[in-house]
Amino acid sequence: MSSMGGSADENLETKETHVRSLSSSHGQEPYVHKVGIPPRQNLFREFQSTVKETFFADDPLRSFKDQTKSRKLILGIEAIFPILSWGRTYNLAKLRGDLIAGLTIASLCIPQDIGYAKLANLDPEYGLYSSFVPPLIYAVMGSSRDIAIGPVAVVSLLLGTLLQSEIDPIANPIDYRRLAFTATFFAGITQATLGVLRLGFLIDFLSHAAIVGFMGGAAITIALQQLKGFLGIQKFTKKTDVISVMYSVLSSAHHGWNWQTIVIGAVFLAFLLFAKYIGKKNTRFFWVPAIAPLISVILSTLFVYLTRADKHGVAIVKHIKSGINPSSVKEIYFTGDYLGKGFRIGIVAGMIALTEATAIGRTFASMKDYQLDGNKEMVALGAMNVVGSFTSCYVATGSFSRSAVNYMAGCETAVSNIVMSVVVFLTLEFLTPLFEYTPNAILATIIISAVINLVDYKAAILIWKIDKFDFVACMGAFFGVVFASVEIGLLIAVSISFAKILLQVTRPRTAILGKIPRTTVYRNIQQYPEATRVPGVLIIRVDSAIYFSNSNYVKERILRWLMDEEEQVKVDYQTRIQFLMVEMSPVTDIDTSGIHALEELFRSLQKRDVQVIIKPSTVTILNDIMWQISYQRKHNFEQLVLANPGPIVIDKLHTSNFAALLGEDKIFLTVAEAVAYCSPKLAEDP
Amino acid sequence: MSSMGGSADENLETKETHVRSLSSSHGQEPYVHKVGIPPRQNLFREFQSTVKETFFADDPLRSFKDQTKSRKLILGIEAIFPILSWGRTYNLAKLRGDLIAGLTIASLCIPQDIGYAKLANLDPEYGLYSSFVPPLIYAVMGSSRDIAIGPVAVVSLLLGTLLQSEIDPIANPIDYRRLAFTATFFAGITQATLGVLRLGFLIDFLSHAAIVGFMGGAAITIALQQLKGFLGIQKFTKKTDVISVMYSVLSSAHHGWNWQTIVIGAVFLAFLLFAKYIGKKNTRFFWVPAIAPLISVILSTLFVYLTRADKHGVAIVKHIKSGINPSSVKEIYFTGDYLGKGFRIGIVAGMIALTEATAIGRTFASMKDYQLDGNKEMVALGAMNVVGSFTSCYVATGSFSRSAVNYMAGCETAVSNIVMSVVVFLTLEFLTPLFEYTPNAILATIIISAVINLVDYKAAILIWKIDKFDFVACMGAFFGVVFASVEIGLLIAVSISFAKILLQVTRPRTAILGKIPRTTVYRNIQQYPEATRVPGVLIIRVDSAIYFSNSNYVKERILRWLMDEEEQVKVDYQTRIQFLMVEMSPVTDIDTSGIHALEELFRSLQKRDVQVIIKPSTVTILNDIMWQISYQRKHNFEQLVLANPGPIVIDKLHTSNFAALLGEDKIFLTVAEAVAYCSPKLAEDP
Repeated sequence: MSSMGGSADENLETKETHVRSLSSSHGQEPYVHKVGIPPRQNLFREFQSTVKETFFADDPLRSFKDQTKSRKLILGIEAIFPILSWGRTYNLAKLRGDLIAGLTIASLCIPQDIGYAKLANLDPEYGLYSSFVPPLIYAVMGSSRDIAIGPVAVVSLLLGTLLQSEIDPIANPIDYRRLAFTATFFAGITQATLGVLRLGFLIDFLSHAAIVGFMGGAAITIALQQLKGFLGIQKFTKKTDVISVMYSVLSSAHHGWNWQTIVIGAVFLAFLLFAKYIGKKNTRFFWVPAIAPLISVILSTLFVYLTRADKHGVAIVKHIKSGINPSSVKEIYFTGDYLGKGFRIGIVAGMIALTEATAIGRTFASMKDYQLDGNKEMVALGAMNVVGSFTSCYVATGSFSRSAVNYMAGCETAVSNIVMSVVVFLTLEFLTPLFEYTPNAILATIIISAVINLVDYKAAILIWKIDKFDFVACMGAFFGVVFASVEIGLLIAVSISFAKILLQVTRPRTAILGKIPRTTVYRNIQQYPEATRVPGVLIIRVDSAIYFSNSNYVKERILRWLMDEEEQVKVDYQTRIQFLMVEMSPVTDIDTSGIHALEELFRSLQKRDVQVIIKPSTVTILNDIMWQISYQRKHNFEQLVLANPGPIVIDKLHTSNFAALLGEDKIFLTVAEAVAYCSPKLAEDP
Repeated sequence: MSSMGGSADENLETKETHVRSLSSSHGQEPYVHKVGIPPRQNLFREFQSTVKETFFADDPLRSFKDQTKSRKLILGIEAIFPILSWGRTYNLAKLRGDLIAGLTIASLCIPQDIGYAKLANLDPEYGLYSSFVPPLIYAVMGSSRDIAIGPVAVVSLLLGTLLQSEIDPIANPIDYRRLAFTATFFAGITQATLGVLRLGFLIDFLSHAAIVGFMGGAAITIALQQLKGFLGIQKFTKKTDVISVMYSVLSSAHHGWNWQTIVIGAVFLAFLLFAKYIGKKNTRFFWVPAIAPLISVILSTLFVYLTRADKHGVAIVKHIKSGINPSSVKEIYFTGDYLGKGFRIGIVAGMIALTEATAIGRTFASMKDYQLDGNKEMVALGAMNVVGSFTSCYVATGSFSRSAVNYMAGCETAVSNIVMSVVVFLTLEFLTPLFEYTPNAILATIIISAVINLVDYKAAILIWKIDKFDFVACMGAFFGVVFASVEIGLLIAVSISFAKILLQVTRPRTAILGKIPRTTVYRNIQQYPEATRVPGVLIIRVDSAIYFSNSNYVKERILRWLMDEEEQVKVDYQTRIQFLMVEMSPVTDIDTSGIHALEELFRSLQKRDVQVIIKPSTVTILNDIMWQISYQRKHNFEQLVLANPGPIVIDKLHTSNFAALLGEDKIFLTVAEAVAYCSPKLAEDP
């Protein structure tokens, strides 16, 4: 911006006006500001840097720089087991925080686990198992301080649906369980592999919007599933879509429902929601909604035990196998038909689990402002699930609700996970009998009150406001899950996300630039209506790298701009266009197809006078003649000019000899300079 | 660029220096150049324009604008049958050109067709059939004037390999043929559908580089296949990879080869190559290589007929069924197991055929500078193949070699295709018996000399020079085809192309900007080493739209730049960084994830002083203390500043309230202005 130039610029001005006046006379580029050509990088370095940016963008080896060998080794071990580094600085103050947080999330997770296990069509104890081993593994390997590990609603549902489409859990529970472990194993392998290969960025391809929609839909689905337990319905559809669920609910209305169950459920649901409300109202009472579930479990269990309501058809948990996780190494399918199925399911479940965990990790990391190495996290989560699959756990990950509680309860480190896991251990060892009379209705209500938070309508509204396309993705995923199934919803989410990426790379934006009054700044005339076009010069900015995926479009779009412009010019007899200027600042890269496109653009500009004669259907004969005249007049004048190509682009323009073809003197540092070259008069009186 | 400002700017300067001096004192934005917020578009219009840009980028309805109903109808019909529009202006002069061109390509295509049919494991007549009907259809529906329609080497090979992996052509010729027609039918449907749905841009996802590699590989493979005919080998491998081919060639060396065949082949290959050479040497003799194949066919046939060389083991064509295409409507599988297979093969073959045709169409269109509607072309090609599949033709498309000859022979319109098709018709009716004694060796040599042009090593070299990644794609496809198979090569080509796109959208470039001496232009300091950084201000340019796929990376990358910079500053005690400026000119769009990323960036800047204390392993205690001090000093000073957000971005920054969060006065039109705000002193003395 000239106004910032200060005194020095003024002398510069005079100097340059002078230079320009002679330069533009025999069309050379002003002597200052040649467009820089970066020093040629050697191939290996180039390759190296690309790889680094792609896979080691977060520069994980930063701390290893110039360290002694032994130190490096230590750092390496610390990198795998972060507990060793933060453990050293651990103290009582922190322990206090972790203890409170750990106990709180434990009280929250135990009832949830039992319920979630049902979502995965597994016996309740497997939910608890998955809250015992995985958190321990994560505590030593993970680097997030706030994430709370365990089974989560969405993954449980997803796993449940995917598994039961292969094996019927009622008819064949053993094989079903074995497949579950197999899937868990491969989920872990997937996660760890992504981490080790530093492919963590792959999960970024599921857009935030899509996730919001997917989560919301899953939450609704899960809540609907709970109607079974909540209304005490005996036979319930296997499908998860809203229609068949509502059908089987209503069809069983007059005989299938159990009023006692409903009463218990309703009462405690009201209680839980009220507790939530209090927690929201005043964050000092965050612990109220946190312990409410456990309380309601205790109360309801007591109530059922005393009234023997189970005799009146109130379904209860009955038996939870006590004792800690048995080994399940031998149960995993490493051969046979189920290997492939388990593998497929594992990948899907693993990716979703990863998405959830990563989202949580990032959120809290940025709230407390510490760095998280996404790939390291994945390795930790992967290892955790692999070990889990050996110890009768199903896919565990970070839970939104529990992590939030963990954070609010003032957790300091992953120790809170250890505390939780100890509590779960004690529960498994000694307290399982107490759950015998726990009514399923309670678990249903707990799950319902847990998942409703996942319906993030506020986010949806914001998405609608910010980006309509994102909103489509969001709704697509949502309705996909609700009306079809979890997989369909997921599929929609992923494909819409990809569609967006493809759209982005196929149809880059272009803009006509104008001069902002009393400055030498050129901006999009749509954004700055006050900006004035330069007579005789059409300035087009291409807003993307020019790659094979869009090169052809870019070329044709530019030609279309030109055509429109010319018709405009023709209509109101303005100065005919002599220069087509392409502002390349945003064009960060260009490939062979892109170069070809530029060459074609260049050539067809030279051939423009042919153009008109061959499209009689579009313009009337009269115009035709006018055009031809105007073209004869301006033929050989219409020139292509480039402004501010970036380092890579200018380099490639040279290696491909396009720069030579176009003429070095047609490439400028700024639009202003280019304009000065095209129409010197203009520059004098802006 | 200040230098262009001229006198007007000077008064502006004084005015602004004044404004700034007071603005920077109580940190407000200079009163001029507010960042423009474009007028809110209504939703429908927005959606409409997006759709238009995506599917009607080439504005096909342009000519329909403000026309009468009847005119529109006519234009519509003309759009489907372009012959109606160019037919009206057709004249004898054009006919002359077309006649010559048509006869030339006919003489070229007849021997090629017979050979290509072999590549597709079909009887010779099917090659001729495919040069009779499809050209006629294309002539009335197509809009390219130079493309020559018929069977082509690569597609024939591809179809052959794909089909014989399903059905053995020798054991079960009838079913094989039926599947071929089915595939052709679906190839046509695929092409037409893409055109009608205006999804033509999908083929742009196969990058130029990948195509070069694929074509080259296919050419080599085809040439190797010809060794069978060329050496007169009886039993030849079915595989197409170089290793197994060479093995079966060499293994049959001492008994399987037939010297008479080799002699004939060698002689005529020499002749053909010499003809090619002449054609290259002097374009006036382009017709020499064009008619050479037919001549060699005639001569060799005569020779064999006279010498009865077929008695000495020279394999000959024997019988070509005479008469024109029989109907094959009933032969297409519309039901059963083969339907799916035909469908799959059809899609692949159709896409490749499309790619070749489109490439040719575009090339010649830009050489003669006329517009081609890619989607309309696809409809034409699709219709042509569908009709073809009903009339015993297999997939036809535009041929590189024949189109080039057509162009050089001075074709004016698609009439040259009609001429060719008439000649082929006559051949089928009356001349097929003459081919009885044609030695297969000749067909082999003709194919070899035809396909060697497809090995475009010059392009490969250019690709290597321009874009290394493209080169990898190119070589990947090439070696994939040569050493594995056509499908594998294709798969590699497509996946590498996609990998590139994903890389592009996941890892956008960022650059540190510096001030170019004696100007107010800020540019990438890598490209312009003379550019000087602004003390106390870190200016980072993000070179891409910020989407979910890269938002997280962008955020972390910026923070990393900042960290590096701070360590630098720390080392050589420069002015500490007070401002992080993000130049957003190239950021053409931002979605919800992008906004989140910016918010996180903003927050973590506010929390920077925490940052240091929690990473003791990286900096020594001493530094730690230094840092903390420096941070205490600069805490609350480090600010985020944005320069030149585009129309969509600024709009979204406002709707998402991030602009408010950041502070309107932190968003500037240009970097220069932002810098002036950040360090007013600096602006005075550049």
